Amino acid sequence: MAAHEKIYGRKAALAVLRSRMDDVARIAHGARDRHELGPILRDAASRRIPYAELDDPQLTALAESMHHEGLVVIARPRPVLDAHELFDRMQHAERFALVALDGVTNPHNVGAILRSAAFLGIDAMVVRGERGRAPLTPAAVRIAEGAAEHLPVAPVPDLDVFLAALGRDGYRVLAADTRGDEDAMTMRWPARGVIVLGSEANGLSEPVRRSIARGVSIRGSGAVESLNVSVAAGVLFAAWVSSERR
Amino acid sequence: MAAHEKIYGRKAALAVLRSRMDDVARIAHGARDRHELGPILRDAASRRIPYAELDDPQLTALAESMHHEGLVVIARPRPVLDAHELFDRMQHAERFALVALDGVTNPHNVGAILRSAAFLGIDAMVVRGERGRAPLTPAAVRIAEGAAEHLPVAPVPDLDVFLAALGRDGYRVLAADTRGDEDAMTMRWPARGVIVLGSEANGLSEPVRRSIARGVSIRGSGAVESLNVSVAAGVLFAAWVSSERR
Repeated sequence: MAAHEKIYGRKAALAVLRSRMDDVARIAHGARDRHELGPILRDAASRRIPYAELDDPQLTALAESMHHEGLVVIARPRPVLDAHELFDRMQHAERFALVALDGVTNPHNVGAILRSAAFLGIDAMVVRGERGRAPLTPAAVRIAEGAAEHLPVAPVPDLDVFLAALGRDGYRVLAADTRGDEDAMTMRWPARGVIVLGSEANGLSEPVRRSIARGVSIRGSGAVESLNVSVAAGVLFAAWVSSERR
Repeated sequence: MAAHEKIYGRKAALAVLRSRMDDVARIAHGARDRHELGPILRDAASRRIPYAELDDPQLTALAESMHHEGLVVIARPRPVLDAHELFDRMQHAERFALVALDGVTNPHNVGAILRSAAFLGIDAMVVRGERGRAPLTPAAVRIAEGAAEHLPVAPVPDLDVFLAALGRDGYRVLAADTRGDEDAMTMRWPARGVIVLGSEANGLSEPVRRSIARGVSIRGSGAVESLNVSVAAGVLFAAWVSSERR
């Protein structure tokens, strides 16, 4: 059995308690939320899951972060989606919107992108990473405010190979690109597609760049260089999922 | 003469050096950027503006922040836009897109919203605040990556009164609202309008709520509660400025 993981941050931890209490080994909370957590703690008690009220330094020590927001959950890790399984699922889908992160690693950005993807209805996310290895840091899980429990995220060792295979299967492989030809807000978004986001500092990696069919840009005024990558992601996702409603 | 202000963070400070060198009293930079700053420092020298290469603790002390990113500029504060002057300008405009922050105070969110507004072509921003008092913290200016030098920002003491006056002048006063009737991505955005953003925790303040004509929502999947406010702002701005291109 895999080691337990910790999930901290109010909404992220609540999402675990609400969606997979069977995985939970232990709950620690601050005094402030005692009342509001009542029903959840009673449920935990009935399942013989231990819980405890801790003070701030104890919660910080348990979470190994000051950003525990008064709630820490120790739980079996959510299963890591395998890239092959995702690919198989995508091959059989008539509609599928995937986001791929190519070098976006700041947990604030990764978490915010995950939150936006889940909110707006993107179907799954892939990140560069080792097979079987948890693709999200606890910090990103916190920032995602529960989205990690809803959106499948797969680590992919060779993102360029994965994207090329999707391209051969009829997926339209797009990338956010400030100089891209397609206007995100007016273009025809695909029913089966991938949007790749590179890092703010370095853009797309060279192998990934070669598997991109088209660049998509968010038209700017020229006053500042670019959008924050998580804001850009939100704009692209919203444009994509709403393109059928227009 | 008003006291000098400090601007730190690479892109924020560079924007000052590029757009209003006449205001600059002093420049401090780290060793790493010596070469790249060469032309700017020579320009500073020709204007007898002192500059110095400092080490990291010195830059941190000068910026009063660890997030100096190797560049600190001491300069005359940018003039604070007066609410009456902004109102006058808006009264005579045929097209004007204003964003109003009602209780968004986290500098990361304020700065990211400013950056997105400048990038996407919003015309100005108002925040609740005292007349004449700088409406942005140095942290927000850093996160905005130079946008503070481009987008006029006015502090407004009574935001509800200001919005009501704009409403009487024919402005459409809209607010981001997860339960709003208007679909941000398909609605007809106004030529003269205001989009009000409330805080993530508390939403709109009660007096401001009464001056809102319509709520605008970004349709979600239901998987998570909401978008981060700066992501939501980016989606709304992009939808607004692109609605004429569709």
